[in-house]
Amino acid sequence: MIARYTRQEMARLWSDEHRYEVWLQVELAACEAMESLGIVPKGTAEEVRARVRLDAQRILEIENVTRHDVIAFLSHVEETAGPPARWLHLGMTSSDVLDTAFAILLGEAMDRILEGVIGLRRVLRERAFEFRTTPCVGRTHGIHAEPIALGLVFARWYAEMGRNLGRLRRARESIAVGKIAGAVGVYGNLSPEIEARCLAALGLRPETVATQVVARDRHAEYFTALAILGASIEKIALTVRHWQRTEVGEAEEAFGRGQKGSSAMPHKKNPILSENLCGLARILRADALAALENVALWHERDISHSSVERIIGPDVTTLADFMLHRLRGLIEGLVVHKERCDENLGRLGGLIFSEAVLLRLVRAGLGRQEAYGLVQRNALRALSGEGRFADLLSDDPDVRAVLSKEALEECFDLPHHLRHVDAIFERTFREEPEEASG
Amino acid sequence: MIARYTRQEMARLWSDEHRYEVWLQVELAACEAMESLGIVPKGTAEEVRARVRLDAQRILEIENVTRHDVIAFLSHVEETAGPPARWLHLGMTSSDVLDTAFAILLGEAMDRILEGVIGLRRVLRERAFEFRTTPCVGRTHGIHAEPIALGLVFARWYAEMGRNLGRLRRARESIAVGKIAGAVGVYGNLSPEIEARCLAALGLRPETVATQVVARDRHAEYFTALAILGASIEKIALTVRHWQRTEVGEAEEAFGRGQKGSSAMPHKKNPILSENLCGLARILRADALAALENVALWHERDISHSSVERIIGPDVTTLADFMLHRLRGLIEGLVVHKERCDENLGRLGGLIFSEAVLLRLVRAGLGRQEAYGLVQRNALRALSGEGRFADLLSDDPDVRAVLSKEALEECFDLPHHLRHVDAIFERTFREEPEEASG
Amino acid sequence: MIARYTRQEMARLWSDEHRYEVWLQVELAACEAMESLGIVPKGTAEEVRARVRLDAQRILEIENVTRHDVIAFLSHVEETAGPPARWLHLGMTSSDVLDTAFAILLGEAMDRILEGVIGLRRVLRERAFEFRTTPCVGRTHGIHAEPIALGLVFARWYAEMGRNLGRLRRARESIAVGKIAGAVGVYGNLSPEIEARCLAALGLRPETVATQVVARDRHAEYFTALAILGASIEKIALTVRHWQRTEVGEAEEAFGRGQKGSSAMPHKKNPILSENLCGLARILRADALAALENVALWHERDISHSSVERIIGPDVTTLADFMLHRLRGLIEGLVVHKERCDENLGRLGGLIFSEAVLLRLVRAGLGRQEAYGLVQRNALRALSGEGRFADLLSDDPDVRAVLSKEALEECFDLPHHLRHVDAIFERTFREEPEEASG
Amino acid sequence: MIARYTRQEMARLWSDEHRYEVWLQVELAACEAMESLGIVPKGTAEEVRARVRLDAQRILEIENVTRHDVIAFLSHVEETAGPPARWLHLGMTSSDVLDTAFAILLGEAMDRILEGVIGLRRVLRERAFEFRTTPCVGRTHGIHAEPIALGLVFARWYAEMGRNLGRLRRARESIAVGKIAGAVGVYGNLSPEIEARCLAALGLRPETVATQVVARDRHAEYFTALAILGASIEKIALTVRHWQRTEVGEAEEAFGRGQKGSSAMPHKKNPILSENLCGLARILRADALAALENVALWHERDISHSSVERIIGPDVTTLADFMLHRLRGLIEGLVVHKERCDENLGRLGGLIFSEAVLLRLVRAGLGRQEAYGLVQRNALRALSGEGRFADLLSDDPDVRAVLSKEALEECFDLPHHLRHVDAIFERTFREEPEEASG
Repeated sequence: MIARYTRQEMARLWSDEHRYEVWLQVELAACEAMESLGIVPKGTAEEVRARVRLDAQRILEIENVTRHDVIAFLSHVEETAGPPARWLHLGMTSSDVLDTAFAILLGEAMDRILEGVIGLRRVLRERAFEFRTTPCVGRTHGIHAEPIALGLVFARWYAEMGRNLGRLRRARESIAVGKIAGAVGVYGNLSPEIEARCLAALGLRPETVATQVVARDRHAEYFTALAILGASIEKIALTVRHWQRTEVGEAEEAFGRGQKGSSAMPHKKNPILSENLCGLARILRADALAALENVALWHERDISHSSVERIIGPDVTTLADFMLHRLRGLIEGLVVHKERCDENLGRLGGLIFSEAVLLRLVRAGLGRQEAYGLVQRNALRALSGEGRFADLLSDDPDVRAVLSKEALEECFDLPHHLRHVDAIFERTFREEPEEASG
Repeated sequence: MIARYTRQEMARLWSDEHRYEVWLQVELAACEAMESLGIVPKGTAEEVRARVRLDAQRILEIENVTRHDVIAFLSHVEETAGPPARWLHLGMTSSDVLDTAFAILLGEAMDRILEGVIGLRRVLRERAFEFRTTPCVGRTHGIHAEPIALGLVFARWYAEMGRNLGRLRRARESIAVGKIAGAVGVYGNLSPEIEARCLAALGLRPETVATQVVARDRHAEYFTALAILGASIEKIALTVRHWQRTEVGEAEEAFGRGQKGSSAMPHKKNPILSENLCGLARILRADALAALENVALWHERDISHSSVERIIGPDVTTLADFMLHRLRGLIEGLVVHKERCDENLGRLGGLIFSEAVLLRLVRAGLGRQEAYGLVQRNALRALSGEGRFADLLSDDPDVRAVLSKEALEECFDLPHHLRHVDAIFERTFREEPEEASG
Repeated sequence: MIARYTRQEMARLWSDEHRYEVWLQVELAACEAMESLGIVPKGTAEEVRARVRLDAQRILEIENVTRHDVIAFLSHVEETAGPPARWLHLGMTSSDVLDTAFAILLGEAMDRILEGVIGLRRVLRERAFEFRTTPCVGRTHGIHAEPIALGLVFARWYAEMGRNLGRLRRARESIAVGKIAGAVGVYGNLSPEIEARCLAALGLRPETVATQVVARDRHAEYFTALAILGASIEKIALTVRHWQRTEVGEAEEAFGRGQKGSSAMPHKKNPILSENLCGLARILRADALAALENVALWHERDISHSSVERIIGPDVTTLADFMLHRLRGLIEGLVVHKERCDENLGRLGGLIFSEAVLLRLVRAGLGRQEAYGLVQRNALRALSGEGRFADLLSDDPDVRAVLSKEALEECFDLPHHLRHVDAIFERTFREEPEEASG
Repeated sequence: MIARYTRQEMARLWSDEHRYEVWLQVELAACEAMESLGIVPKGTAEEVRARVRLDAQRILEIENVTRHDVIAFLSHVEETAGPPARWLHLGMTSSDVLDTAFAILLGEAMDRILEGVIGLRRVLRERAFEFRTTPCVGRTHGIHAEPIALGLVFARWYAEMGRNLGRLRRARESIAVGKIAGAVGVYGNLSPEIEARCLAALGLRPETVATQVVARDRHAEYFTALAILGASIEKIALTVRHWQRTEVGEAEEAFGRGQKGSSAMPHKKNPILSENLCGLARILRADALAALENVALWHERDISHSSVERIIGPDVTTLADFMLHRLRGLIEGLVVHKERCDENLGRLGGLIFSEAVLLRLVRAGLGRQEAYGLVQRNALRALSGEGRFADLLSDDPDVRAVLSKEALEECFDLPHHLRHVDAIFERTFREEPEEASG
């Protein structure tokens, strides 16, 4: 978490203060569950809640002696809330608190990220419809292929973000699991009933078979889902960078008043937000790996996952939140140059319809490979500057032997080529509910 | 795919021969869709199917000239099936075939993996019930903590494999998507209707908004789900390795007749299967990364993902299949030494009940930290060999001031400690349907 | 290792046959060392060498029973070479053979890769000099920045490959280490003297403090060095892909006679070799991770690294060899379009000299930020099509207040801008010896 | 960088304040180089240095408008140092400052890490000699193999850390490269001479062929070298965790006065420092990946690497520094239980000498596989509790047919087995200079 890439709400969420609040919330929920079952005197939780004054600094001081964070926390609660606090944590182990609290924090963080994805999709949808009928060239391998509608690019991202939404929601569900099952998960001095009541109050499910901790395959799913989100963001950002290339120029990031692109070259307007997003995606990808290494703990747990999660828990969610926010602003502000789209579309002088010519020749009775050869030879001549593609075809006796001039001309038909765009839009934006879930 | 880690069925699945068969299946399904819509003469697909003779070697020869695999395939189909073959691939692009076929292949591979997980779970369930009442020591940080039932360990793995089942099924669903949408995904010379009929016949859904290819976030989900499966397998294997340590000795891999553990030391019986599984999990983890890097392609596609998928598609699924098979055999054959479980359980002379003593002291009125100090000082003395824990407690006047000898003895109660194991079992094996899907 | 990406020599190097030959080489070198020290009867190695007939298939059959590869090998040697073979492997453990042989194989593989890097550099050097004086636009963030000489791009790659050469040579040195130190590395039934003689004969050094195996940080260095090589190759390939973009068109991969770029679009010429290289770099990067996870083995060794190395040893080196070969051919055949370089250079109408104008204003007495503002406002007007940059500047009274028309014109001076290119070339190609080692 | 894992010196090194100081240092060194060449008025740098007052907060405020960090910095310098500051940055681009400064910062960070490695080695050496003659069991696959001397384990780590030292020094050298070569690296408004003077003053070399930035393969080497260091630390920590297992008990982390091992179980003493180190190694490994993805930038640079480096630059070096410090303390304080070493050594009743028996049988004339069978059958009987190994051998008529009771007894000879330990020590600690460099 570096300030530059941290939005305020996430800073608060991952602060020491908030973490201790959530720990307290877990301890008190467990206490109340025990109260309801007659194990702890009625009113204990309420009394503690009334008296306790959490001081993050003081807790860290105590931890310097005990070298154990939860014990330091409990000592501090006891020193400020007094005797009733001795009923807290009864039969519990630190991880009952830590893992349950971590589930709450990861859930809160994911809720913000989900909001971010939903907000981003709203903007993508708007811009998709804005450019629904704007033709531009489709490129494969970076080479002009055939025309598309610019709006499809945004529609595609919308659909992909829908899939991310599904994955992230499932990931959230996957980690919405706590445990109040004691030192090795067998409720030695607790009971499934206490756990059930406590976790229900916190909006969590119990781990099916806990060890000292909740199983980490759940968290691996959470962090890999975020790595995929990162890769999807990278994909969008990468397209923007390509669009903004000087030679392409079809779209560019908004350039702020007072902004400077380069300390040396005053003419520069660079796609720095997109480049930044591409970089941050690498961090999400890398951190997913550490999460995958966290799954295989020793026996009923070892604590090697803890340092990793202290780092990647805040870092990955904070970056994901930041990236979504940044990307949304970028898409909202994206300046599209339709005239450059048109210019580029015409750049190859009709070569982008070579497939239509090929198919027309096949329909006229040529074998596929034979027709391919005919079209390719004229296309390569056009590419090397020997003439316009349509003219070369028209002058090629082998082509003209099977196709009339009119038949040839019909191949260069943009509206025909894009006739199914509406159907794709309908499917994409109608499918919303299903898409969102999966 | 190295022979050593490849089961026969997977070798067949990923062979050139099978791949070409699936390509043909896709081409013919598209052709039949076009026939049904009157675009291609009725009976074309049937005629091609009757005449064609696929020869993988010959296709590779042609590819050496064209440097394009699908064109080489089509040329070969045309040279063996004759004129009707010219109707194949009409309006299609290579990726219509490749991506649709890849979805079929990945689906077939995942079906075998799912079978493997289901088979593994069956064995885990059996062994869980076999050791449901076998006490053994629970360990956290590798250190004796409190007792558990050995069967819980298998139950835990069963539950985790249930979660993997859910993730893998969703991953299979995620990639069960084809496209017959042409060069840049706008159905320039095709139609959504053709695609719908073709894919329905193949058991696939259409990509919502295709480019030249199906979006690779889908595949990233597939490969990360397999990486998590690998990590879960690693987790199980790691426990077996720990159990088999000479000093622990609670369980060991079956040792075959004629097997030799070491070329130098005839006394060795090593957990080599488990170690092997831990290694292979690293490959699955690493390859997931490459899949994550495959998401961000240029514009309507670049082909950088292709070489990656040629390698990790076969490798990762083949290894996952192999690992599941190996692990299932390992678990079936695992030799458990109950007497060593008992011996280890007693090794710390009752220290594993230190929490029970602590809680008894708290219930007797001590503050939590005060009680902790009392128990810890006796525990540390016991650890350094100054006497048995129970005796030391019994001799400690501060302890005895609040607890009677009888009260102390009641703390060392194994059956009480394990009283909720049945409830956990019931929850785990009853929850099957939900667990499997979630 | 898939055939598509495997050159013949590497296939041979990593074949079962060659591996067994190297194992035999190690066993015999150890045997001869023992002969020279009077531990084994003189002539044993020679006799075994004369009699033995290695049959890879037969060895795998035996391994199916013993489940131990080296024991299977030794049994086979004994069954074909007869009684003298019983003196082989005396006091040795399997890893004495395996690790020493692996060092030899990795060394052989690296020798081919080093050749590949050297060959690639030769071609890069040639093309660097070919385009030493060819101006083209330099781009940062994908946006036109200032002019460069095209040859500098090749010179840069030449220098980077020189650094890779240094890293790879050190990596080769790092793993050129064997061990003949027995089961746990203490020479229990061997001696440092035997090891020294055996390894010297094989061109290896002894591991400083062995366990059962050679330390794996050495191999991690080897595989991370190859991952960096992969990233450097990716960097070159990525530039080619950018050059070949339809809108840029400054260079393109050679297009073979008979080659077809797309099954649908006969006009396509795609940078498929470069894209392929970008994909393969991901595999090298991913596999380096598995190598890093291999370092931390248990105690005197566990065998989890073995399955990983069986896969990544052949895969990574084979791919690296293939990639270097492919890249070299690509660079040799690269078609450069100088006219497009010129065209692109002029595209922004002189904006690429905005820094020169800025500096001239500073020298004329303006503050840096003030001068920046003046130049930026004219540059942004030029970018939005309001006129040519030079004209706008010339018409701007604030500019003209400090700079004459002549002074302005002097800012747009390409030869002046490139006056230090020769110095860079001299430094790069003169520095060869140092560069190669560092 | 989270406070918990950040030592004060590293916090200072990576603070905004220090970064700006280093930027200033670079600008002034460049300015002085220009002064010496008559390009900038003499005394400019001195004047700026005297007047400037850097205020990190203020710089960030300006950046919020310009969205460009170096321009914000320069504006701030100009606003506090006045007119002479306009001579700064003449002909330079931001990356001239940023990359040169980053090299200085990474160098400073590495210097601390190198100190950490050297300090760690000192402690490892001491403990190696302390336990040079302490026998303990060697384990392969976690299973007792043959005896070793405990000191060898420390000696091994010492040697491995020597190799890390070599890699890290080379990595430091690799990034000790700056550039003052302008917007696209051709010295358009600068000269190699200015760069040479500036960098010499800063203790750096020039990039051979720069783009706008220094090549990132250099940084990839830096971060992969740190990932390998992390893996070596993990390896040591993993051994400590194994040693401290309750059943093994050969060594344990020092347990502080007042420390608490578990909030639930007062008897716990857990190897939490080692577990923590294992976790942090995962972060170093993961971050190396992001560094590898940073190599392939577009054309003369894109800025996607920047966000990655802002995160991993401080994080990785800070963690490495922390880990080395923590590990050194851990090794210094490590409590070794020699009596447990002895106890474990005897646990298998002599089986750990099975190889010696095997070799004696071979020397007595048996074929290797025949002898192996004889020893294995007695060893497996011993393992399953049918008697002591030596007794069983002695009672086996097939063994006794070739070996006398005395000959058998001679096989169980610990001092003989460890006779070469001194030679290994001599080699390890004598080889210091060479080891350190390579």
